[in-house]
Amino acid sequence: MSDILDSLKRVFEEVTQEADWGQPAQYIPELAEVDPAQLAISVCTADGKTHSAGLSDKLFSIQSISKIFSLIAALGRAGDQLWTRVGCEPSGTSFDSIVLLESERGQPRNPFVNAGAIVTTDALLSGREPKMALAEILGLVRAMAEDDNIHINADVAKSEQRTGERNKALAHYLASYGNLLNPPDLTLGTYFHQCAIEMTTVQLARAGRTLARIDGAPKIVSAHHARRLNALMMTCGHYDGSGDFAFKVGLPGKSGVGGGLLVIVPGKASIAIWSPGLNAYGNSKAGTRVAAMLSQSMGWSIF
Amino acid sequence: MSDILDSLKRVFEEVTQEADWGQPAQYIPELAEVDPAQLAISVCTADGKTHSAGLSDKLFSIQSISKIFSLIAALGRAGDQLWTRVGCEPSGTSFDSIVLLESERGQPRNPFVNAGAIVTTDALLSGREPKMALAEILGLVRAMAEDDNIHINADVAKSEQRTGERNKALAHYLASYGNLLNPPDLTLGTYFHQCAIEMTTVQLARAGRTLARIDGAPKIVSAHHARRLNALMMTCGHYDGSGDFAFKVGLPGKSGVGGGLLVIVPGKASIAIWSPGLNAYGNSKAGTRVAAMLSQSMGWSIF
Amino acid sequence: MSDILDSLKRVFEEVTQEADWGQPAQYIPELAEVDPAQLAISVCTADGKTHSAGLSDKLFSIQSISKIFSLIAALGRAGDQLWTRVGCEPSGTSFDSIVLLESERGQPRNPFVNAGAIVTTDALLSGREPKMALAEILGLVRAMAEDDNIHINADVAKSEQRTGERNKALAHYLASYGNLLNPPDLTLGTYFHQCAIEMTTVQLARAGRTLARIDGAPKIVSAHHARRLNALMMTCGHYDGSGDFAFKVGLPGKSGVGGGLLVIVPGKASIAIWSPGLNAYGNSKAGTRVAAMLSQSMGWSIF
Amino acid sequence: MSDILDSLKRVFEEVTQEADWGQPAQYIPELAEVDPAQLAISVCTADGKTHSAGLSDKLFSIQSISKIFSLIAALGRAGDQLWTRVGCEPSGTSFDSIVLLESERGQPRNPFVNAGAIVTTDALLSGREPKMALAEILGLVRAMAEDDNIHINADVAKSEQRTGERNKALAHYLASYGNLLNPPDLTLGTYFHQCAIEMTTVQLARAGRTLARIDGAPKIVSAHHARRLNALMMTCGHYDGSGDFAFKVGLPGKSGVGGGLLVIVPGKASIAIWSPGLNAYGNSKAGTRVAAMLSQSMGWSIF
Repeated sequence: MSDILDSLKRVFEEVTQEADWGQPAQYIPELAEVDPAQLAISVCTADGKTHSAGLSDKLFSIQSISKIFSLIAALGRAGDQLWTRVGCEPSGTSFDSIVLLESERGQPRNPFVNAGAIVTTDALLSGREPKMALAEILGLVRAMAEDDNIHINADVAKSEQRTGERNKALAHYLASYGNLLNPPDLTLGTYFHQCAIEMTTVQLARAGRTLARIDGAPKIVSAHHARRLNALMMTCGHYDGSGDFAFKVGLPGKSGVGGGLLVIVPGKASIAIWSPGLNAYGNSKAGTRVAAMLSQSMGWSIF
Repeated sequence: MSDILDSLKRVFEEVTQEADWGQPAQYIPELAEVDPAQLAISVCTADGKTHSAGLSDKLFSIQSISKIFSLIAALGRAGDQLWTRVGCEPSGTSFDSIVLLESERGQPRNPFVNAGAIVTTDALLSGREPKMALAEILGLVRAMAEDDNIHINADVAKSEQRTGERNKALAHYLASYGNLLNPPDLTLGTYFHQCAIEMTTVQLARAGRTLARIDGAPKIVSAHHARRLNALMMTCGHYDGSGDFAFKVGLPGKSGVGGGLLVIVPGKASIAIWSPGLNAYGNSKAGTRVAAMLSQSMGWSIF
Repeated sequence: MSDILDSLKRVFEEVTQEADWGQPAQYIPELAEVDPAQLAISVCTADGKTHSAGLSDKLFSIQSISKIFSLIAALGRAGDQLWTRVGCEPSGTSFDSIVLLESERGQPRNPFVNAGAIVTTDALLSGREPKMALAEILGLVRAMAEDDNIHINADVAKSEQRTGERNKALAHYLASYGNLLNPPDLTLGTYFHQCAIEMTTVQLARAGRTLARIDGAPKIVSAHHARRLNALMMTCGHYDGSGDFAFKVGLPGKSGVGGGLLVIVPGKASIAIWSPGLNAYGNSKAGTRVAAMLSQSMGWSIF
Repeated sequence: MSDILDSLKRVFEEVTQEADWGQPAQYIPELAEVDPAQLAISVCTADGKTHSAGLSDKLFSIQSISKIFSLIAALGRAGDQLWTRVGCEPSGTSFDSIVLLESERGQPRNPFVNAGAIVTTDALLSGREPKMALAEILGLVRAMAEDDNIHINADVAKSEQRTGERNKALAHYLASYGNLLNPPDLTLGTYFHQCAIEMTTVQLARAGRTLARIDGAPKIVSAHHARRLNALMMTCGHYDGSGDFAFKVGLPGKSGVGGGLLVIVPGKASIAIWSPGLNAYGNSKAGTRVAAMLSQSMGWSIF
């Protein structure tokens, strides 16, 4: 085990010197046009400090990382009844697969595959105006990060809305099984906007402190619920690459297609990483590497 | 958090007073005829002590828990090359499903579904006589438990061999993709025998100390490998109930259809539980409950 | 073999005396509220005559039988290029399954499962206003039936549009693979309206004469194309009940969820049957029985 | 329509002048080493004559075409009860897929996919010695062909037995669902031997006369059963290429991986073709082409 500042510096240097950054997500122009050779790392430690390396004040699209926040908000509203509509098992399939949904009659495997996140957002929406639900998610993220300067990028949301045919298919499919309580367009509109929240790694790492249950973190989620959310991130946080992440990093985490990665070190730290080039599972390539290296050098694996 | 002796006593009493034990596995007479209303718990703690409650000197068939031991042995023999033949991702399907095997062209998802365990045993066998491989597994288990009085129940092995049509199908299927290097009958024979190892909860808990990396545990697996094995148990240890176990217990574990359950508390303890009645996923019903209660009362969740 | 009039009378009496009519489709009120104990049969024979029994002047919703007409129209417009967008193989799955679509990357198995019919309608639409495509289908049906009094029931179309979540999912899913060239809403609107065409069995039997290639039938489809359409009806006309229909009836046919059934006797006759109660595959229960009995008593099996 | 002798000559010449013969099956040496550039055609017509072109006296391995004969024999023994163990629907999957077997709990889709043929052979075996069942199949083939000089190639059978891991997997899988009544090895042994029957195209065309119900054919199968067998060949005779065959040839047929093809023209002719190079579905490439051309030039499509 070593000092976090040393580790951070060493890992950052080693990874930025590598040539292999992966490809950014191609499905919307806002993500596709980003230079993949970028890296930001921020770590909030138990002593209340935040350490960063690289472009830690650069805003990026958190995309699927927002599924954590909408899940927390939806559990606050629907309680454990949410688990009658969505499971908590790894799916063994890719993030946008519709296959299991048919054999399981409209109940998504977990809240982190797209279908499950759409159900979660639907539970949060619960008959209200989309902007009310979005205000609730944004309010939660801001409170967790203790930073009011967190916003939704409307252009990104609009691009998703224009191109998200697969997500529209999932929403209508869920509706066909009666597992969508709001009109599909409203739920999807909310979902596309929550994915378009922009944060810096500093903000995201700070928002993760509650889940890491470190001192000074806002008391928003009970320790009991934080543990369960971390468990979910461990088994389902990286789609069909979740086992690999658990194996190599040994920490709960959630990735987004924008290249963001939130990694929780229970009781010890909250780590946010951003690097927009992706690996074969659709997770940040350099980000996953950074997480593995930091975990190893700091002795942070929970196993 | 409380004292382990208090917790153990309280959990044992609460669970044994429950009427709902579940049904033992029905597919072979040796398992089917067991009275489900039985419970044993043993816990090895970091101070080198072993605490037990219930029938902790009763032998039971470890079944799929043996997959941990054959995996350790196979990794010792084949090294990381084993991962070219079997993955490390949760499957999202039941323990004996053959479906994914077709779409993934003969590469099982992980070493804990039956197909993956058969490949693991095949890698361990590697052209030798089955009895050599079995001696190696038994030797490993005995060394980990520091107890030479651990044996294979030949009747149980014979029963499995007689009735294991699904496993035979898996083996020939793997062979059809060239992912079995020994004759299917030899690999299966070895596999059926390793599943028929009998242990008490005391022996099993002691064998788990190495994975828990607690003081005094035999140095058989490096800390690095132990962490990876624990990660695998977390994401894949309970088939399509793995997410639920992570969610409710928050610890890596591996179950067997004989009602056994090995649970690892990294750095702190190794827990073995036995209760032969099963839940819907084929895992010990009372055992899973004991694990969740102990984890909660001791504050042992790794999340 | 016997006389068609005798056969018709005998079959009609035997089937109407049966109590077991099945249940009408429940998903839209217009179909659900229909009394299942109704039967109409019309047969156009090679001598140019049309014989009927039962409610042969009653209008019913042709539903999926419309897929034949939209396919003929789309082939007229797109030619054999249509087969690059949709296959001609039986699917082995139910009419609205989305599973194969994922493994085959957005190319539906055949034009008679819903996904395939949506692609077909999309090819027919080809950038035009939906009402233009609908006029083309209606014009084709009227020409084939030589009867201008055939219309679309707007209420049924509206009901489908309101409840067709599964079809919306299929359309967006096809779009996500680039296999929908028009906006999903426009293609679906056209599709829902074509399904809402209403006909009597007399009109439908007359519309089938072209496919039966009997004297006096309008020359709308070449003998070569008629043969291929009949082959498609044989292998794919009844979803996952196609094999059973081929086995028991021995004739190409296409069913609709409204209880209609068009059966072709190549070179000899065109049969339309309507009875709104359905069997387990979603095909007319009494209708299938009538088809089997008529085929047998007339010696009409093509095998 | 034209004269059969002219057609036969023209088709033979056109196809043999083509360079594209496809690849023979590679999984056993007996099939793999055959020169693909070979063609034999024999046609038995309603006037009792047999016309041939090419290597019509050359023996080839009938492989899956034997499934027709074992089905006829099994239906003779088990009657319609066989249909409780195997379905009559196209599978939409390849000949040796195990996937559907899991979702349908051990009941194969139809008797022409490998799993279904193994069940059929098992029903025929019904507790007897394999050689008894094989004698029954051989006896049936000889009676249908009116030729006693038809035998099993023991080398081919032995090769299949050595390499048939996928079929062994299917057999054990069926056994795991209780859908195999004999020991898997006995049923498989019988199955591998029936596939190794050798015939010339003359013999095979003559054996098909009963199904074509042409004058002079041995009365072995009732017209009712012949029709049903033809229907099965139409919907399921070419695995996941059945729809394509129906579409292009318009006749019931059954292919074998040895390059054989039996095509039935109900009431008119029985056609046997052999050319060992295969297309993507595992059916004879030149053979399929010959069938399509003959059907078209003779006007033999049943549609």
